[in-house]
This record gives sequence, C-alpha cells and structure tokens, in this order.
Amino acid sequence: MKAEIIAVGTELLLGQIVNTNARDLAAGLSDCGVIVYYQTVVGDNPGRLKDAIKDAYKRVDLVILTGGLGPTKDDLTKEIIAEYFGKKLVLHQPSLDRIKGYFDRMGREMNETNEKQAYMPEGCIILENNCGTAPGLIIENGEKTAILLPGPPKEMNPMFENEVKPWLKEKTGSIIKSRTLKMVDIGESNMAAEVTDLMEGENPTVAPYAKEGESELRITAMAESEDEADKLIEPVAKEIYARLGEYIYGEDDTTLVEALVKKLIQKKLTISTAESCTGGLIASEITSVAGSSEIFGSGYVTYANCAKMKMLGVKDKTLADYGAVSSETAKEMAEGARAASGADIAVSVTGIAGPGGGSAEKPVGLVYIALADNGGTICEKLKLDGSRDKVRGRTVKNVLKMVIQRIDKKGENK
Amino acid sequence: MKAEIIAVGTELLLGQIVNTNARDLAAGLSDCGVIVYYQTVVGDNPGRLKDAIKDAYKRVDLVILTGGLGPTKDDLTKEIIAEYFGKKLVLHQPSLDRIKGYFDRMGREMNETNEKQAYMPEGCIILENNCGTAPGLIIENGEKTAILLPGPPKEMNPMFENEVKPWLKEKTGSIIKSRTLKMVDIGESNMAAEVTDLMEGENPTVAPYAKEGESELRITAMAESEDEADKLIEPVAKEIYARLGEYIYGEDDTTLVEALVKKLIQKKLTISTAESCTGGLIASEITSVAGSSEIFGSGYVTYANCAKMKMLGVKDKTLADYGAVSSETAKEMAEGARAASGADIAVSVTGIAGPGGGSAEKPVGLVYIALADNGGTICEKLKLDGSRDKVRGRTVKNVLKMVIQRIDKKGENK
Repeated sequence: MKAEIIAVGTELLLGQIVNTNARDLAAGLSDCGVIVYYQTVVGDNPGRLKDAIKDAYKRVDLVILTGGLGPTKDDLTKEIIAEYFGKKLVLHQPSLDRIKGYFDRMGREMNETNEKQAYMPEGCIILENNCGTAPGLIIENGEKTAILLPGPPKEMNPMFENEVKPWLKEKTGSIIKSRTLKMVDIGESNMAAEVTDLMEGENPTVAPYAKEGESELRITAMAESEDEADKLIEPVAKEIYARLGEYIYGEDDTTLVEALVKKLIQKKLTISTAESCTGGLIASEITSVAGSSEIFGSGYVTYANCAKMKMLGVKDKTLADYGAVSSETAKEMAEGARAASGADIAVSVTGIAGPGGGSAEKPVGLVYIALADNGGTICEKLKLDGSRDKVRGRTVKNVLKMVIQRIDKKGENK
Repeated sequence: MKAEIIAVGTELLLGQIVNTNARDLAAGLSDCGVIVYYQTVVGDNPGRLKDAIKDAYKRVDLVILTGGLGPTKDDLTKEIIAEYFGKKLVLHQPSLDRIKGYFDRMGREMNETNEKQAYMPEGCIILENNCGTAPGLIIENGEKTAILLPGPPKEMNPMFENEVKPWLKEKTGSIIKSRTLKMVDIGESNMAAEVTDLMEGENPTVAPYAKEGESELRITAMAESEDEADKLIEPVAKEIYARLGEYIYGEDDTTLVEALVKKLIQKKLTISTAESCTGGLIASEITSVAGSSEIFGSGYVTYANCAKMKMLGVKDKTLADYGAVSSETAKEMAEGARAASGADIAVSVTGIAGPGGGSAEKPVGLVYIALADNGGTICEKLKLDGSRDKVRGRTVKNVLKMVIQRIDKKGENK
C-alpha cells in the first residue's frame, strides 16, 4: 500500500512547530508494511488543502491527514474530506456524549463549537479519542482511503497505535514487528561490537541505537503474523541476552525509571531523594511511575544551603570547607535523606546546571551524585555538557543507573 | 513571493529523523516575507523528485530544496534541478579548491566522488558552504526560482542565515511578523468565541491555538518593515488584551513557569512547594528556570501520609477525618511548607493521579491545590482528565496559574 502523510496546520508552515507527527506516522506506517512516498504540509486553507488531497490521490491510494479536527472554524480537514468522498456529515451521538463527558469531568462548560467535532462523514469508521475531544476517522471508497487523526501528538500517537495500526495490519496482511533491548552502562559502539555478526542478518535485522546515555538493540522481523515474527526474533534476542544480558535493563517501552521502580518493588526496598540542581526532577520521575508509592515516601528539594542543613543535616563546616557542589556535601545529603526518611536507599544530587554559576574549578556541568544504603555511601563525579535541561536530564539518568547497578551488585553478593 | 519547501531524503520518509530543516526554513522564510504554501518530503528517487518539483512549480514560484547534494550517486537534487532549468553542470573551480581545502584541514584524502559536488548549473549563484563540502545554489529563469541547500542542519542553517536571507529580503522587500498572546484558564473554543470578529481580519491575521491546558492567539502581520508590522499588530493586540487580558500570562516564547519566576523575582517573593501526587514536578519546573534560586530555597515531596505529618506538620486527625486527598489536608500542607521553609508563598498538591487509587467519591483526576501566603490560605478543587502524566502536568499548570493570579490580585488590592 502506497501512502502520503498530509499534516494540516499554518503553525507548521510558519515554522512555529516541528512536524513530529510526520516522523511518528512514517515510522508507524512502515511497521505495518505501508510505504510512504510523500509527506506534505499545508496550512489551514480550504482551497490549498483540497488541492493537496487531489494531488495526493494522483500519487497514492492511502492518505493520512493530521490536524484541522479542532473546534474552531479554521479547522476544516473533516469537512473537506467528507466533500471529497461525497459524504454528508451526520451527528455521531456517542462522540457527542463522549465530548460532553470530557467537559463535565473537567468541570468546564462545553462550547457549542465543540459539537462540530461530533459530526462525522456518514459510513466512516470512528476512531475514539481518549486523550482529547476530536474523534478521528477512517473513510474508504474502494480504491481510495483516508485516515484523519487529530494534530496534537498526545492525541494522535495513541489513536494511531491503538486503533489505526491494527486496522492497517489487517489490510496489508504483512506485519513488521520490532523488539528493542534497552541497555545502560555500555556505549553504542561497544554494544555493537559484541553483535556485529547478528547485525548482518536480513530477517530479522538487528540495529543499534543510542539515546541520552542509553543504548538499544532493535530486532526487526517481517512476517505474515505476530507469531511468525516472534519465532524469527526469539532466538536472536536469546543470543543477545547471552552476550549482553548484564547491561539490559528492559525491553521496548520500558523506561529506565520504570525498570528501577519494578526492581525496588520486587526487592521490597524503599528510596528517598535529596536534590539540589535537579530540583525535584528525580522525585518526579520516580513518582511518574504508577505504583511508586510502594517504594517512595518522601523527597527533599534542598536548593538553598540552609535547606541542605535544616532538612538534611548537612554540616555548616562541610559547606564552608568544600562548598555545596562537592562529594562531601553530596554524601551528607544522601545520608541525611536516608536518616530523615527512614528509606532503605537515599540518593542525592548537587551540581551546577548552568547556564550561570560556573567557575574555573567548578564549571557548569559538574555534578556530584551520591547513594546511601545499609552498605555505606558511594559518590560519583559527573562532568556533563549541554543546556541546563540536558545537564539536569542526564544527571537523572545517571542517578537511576547508579541505583539499579547498586541493587544488582548487592544481589550478586548474596 | 509564494514558496514550497521540498526536503529530499528517504530517512525522512521512513521516519528515522524529524524534518527540522522544514521548520527552520519556514520560520526563516516568513521573516523574509516569503509565504510558504506547502512543505513536501520526497525520497532519494529521481522520478518522484522530478514529479515533486513539477507539482511544486504549478503552485508556487520559489522552491527551496534541502538534501541530495552529497557525493554519493543517490544524491541527485542538483542534477535534476539543472535538467529542469535546462542548464549544463560545469566545474566551479573555487568550490573544488574549497572542498579540497576542507579535506586538507581535516587531514583526510578527498574522495573523487566529492569532485561531483563542485559541478554546478551554469549561470547559478553559488552559496558557499563553510561547515561542509556541498555548495548550495540559487538558480532563476525569470518566473521560477530554485534554492538548493545541503541536508545536514549544521550546514543548511548557517548557509540560509548568511547567504539566502539577505538575498531574499532584497527580493521581497517585505517581512512577516507574529506576536503570540498566551493564556491559561480559558479553553481554545471559548477564547476563539471572544474574538471571532478579529479572526476575520486579513492583515494582521488572528489565529487560535491550544497547547496542554493553555490557549494562544497569534497575530501575524505582513509589512515592509518591523515597525510597520508592529503598527498593524499593536491595535489588535490591545483589543485582545481588553477582552481577554485576565487570562493572558505572557507573550511569544515566554512559558507559564518563566512568567511566574519573573513575577516572583520582580516582587521579591520567595516560594516553596509541598507535593504529593505531583511528586516534585512543580519544584522541578520552577528550578528548570535559570535564576530560580533567587526565589526558591526548598521543596517538600510528601508522598506518604507520615511524610505529610513529619515534614509539614499535617495533623493525624485531619488525615483520619478527611483523608489525604482533601482541601483540609491540602491547606495544612501549604501552611506547613510555608512555616518550615520560611518562604513568602507556599503551594501544595494532593490528589489521585491514577491510573489506580480512585473511588466513587474520590475518582482519579481529583486534585486539591492550595496556596498559603500572608493573606491567608486558599484552596482549589480540580477535576482533571487523562493519563497519570496528563493529570500531573495539568495540575502543575493550575498551580502555576493560581500563584500568578494570587500575586496579580494582591497587586490590585494595593
């Protein structure tokens, strides 16, 4: 099946946002064995949108449109597609009820313009939107198919994953399945060096990726069914575990923090955080995982020195002698958080996230992270580069990694 | 001048990379008064690239192409454009010398395939590449113009800024300027309903956008100079402030949290946070702003009830009588955080982020947020919708908004 992606939105044409939808859709479509020939962006302009749709169907048989499903009167994608397929827009009561319910739950008045979002081309397949108001839809007339999805990625992506992908796989009959093994504490090139032979395979293929201090191997198989794909993938995955298992913390969508929370729950260990330059980011990461309340009770954001002393019992002298950004302070922060919280493990961060506040001996990107548990207190010195956000984000990864490795090591010692 | 951006590259069609070039070019082109009508992505396929170029010139008079200028044989953009404009490729000695020099400086042998990059359509304007090997070019034939730029953003961006922009501004003699008014506490549709009349204007145009619990109105004017654009935008902005001023927290790139931190610094007010279900997210947001240490000293992540009691002095009885998720608990958390931190303002959050933990009387998405300052303690009950992340994220927005509105109100009272 040949496809074109049309993203509708003047903000794209003005360069106010990046078209991540096109990237996400293109990647998802190839998973379903659909070949994307073109991507197009057009503004909220009826005439030009009509032309773009006409041109697209000269080239392909499947057109995926994102954006222009909103409540305002410059949102016209659905109206124009209905016209193109010669269908009337009719009220879809379940969607109207869902939209009303959405506003009720938010305790807000539903504006009547939102009713427009519940009018759908007759005979189309409705795609429910569980993250917003605008429903999506699939409409076909034999040779041509259009799939309309909302513009906001947070609405578009789940709708595509949960409702469009299964429908497409059904259509194309061939599927592409991937399984990703995620690793920390090993660089992409070292990881790849361990599996060069496997990377020469054709089905499944094995490809290395690097992301923000993590490395992954993606095993991808093409087959007629999920089961067949799994049969192709399984032995290769097994072989990779045999070679690199010690670095693998999870698979596919599992994030580092999810893997950590799972480990802590399994081992019945509780954790607390003492944060200076990350300012609550580690605590918010841990508590972003559902069920984290089992292993996380309290965290301390000690941005000011007096807070480090008062909340964590960091010694005045330590701050005076070594400064707030030092291994000594980091260790006392971790020990203080462990004592104050009564958690099994406490981690701490103190550093210079920038852009200001750096000096020759303590430059921006210098961060100390410490961990205190019943085995004692360890500390690592990080030298990170990049923006304030990057430094903070990388620090979080390093802390999560530090805890996972600490737990695993202690496991071995038993 | 009407333009289309064509990005050439199979990696874009496969969704392996995001098309940041289109965003950067679109933004830069509007600065020069060029109106981008379409963006297109096509793979490294001669036939489809030729079709894309033909289609583009049916719609616009200026086509900007990025990518496909590399040394390999699937890099064909220059060859196809030369053919389209009926020009021969001739050796451009200065470019060849520059490419040779580039390899010399990098201490690498120049591969002869790189010579291909020095052959340019006769009569074109050469754009020097100071960050890579491939030169760019501008070619015109009276009504049609093509601008070819390298694909790597590190090469494309400086070439566009330094060589293409000045050339374009000369050509168009006009610019486009936008001003965005950012709002909270009002939905996109309700916001739009207040300014439907203004949205019918042609210059400037007024367009509504919705983003994660925020709404924006973008005013865009075309004029011969920045000053003239401002003259067109100003009265419309004024009118919008008159109608929606209470919801407007900032303009253009200002984020809600930046607006808050700025306000706190201006008013010399310090703030502290007491977080249950947001688990440190508010503190991490505030501390994500450089300079926040001026107004933020400490924060409390009190996930467990015992932490709420120990760190914030929430009464055992309050938790027993009303539960952790209640206005009573939220208020005591805020007051406790204000007392413990000595900050001027303390905010607190307690709620059910989900997916579990909900009940009939206290469903997922029920969140209480409180604020304590020298004027007393106020509390709001939120009913939020969506995933755990969404509930937490929206809660943060609401807390930031609550603080901004509180500060502003107190300003009025003076």
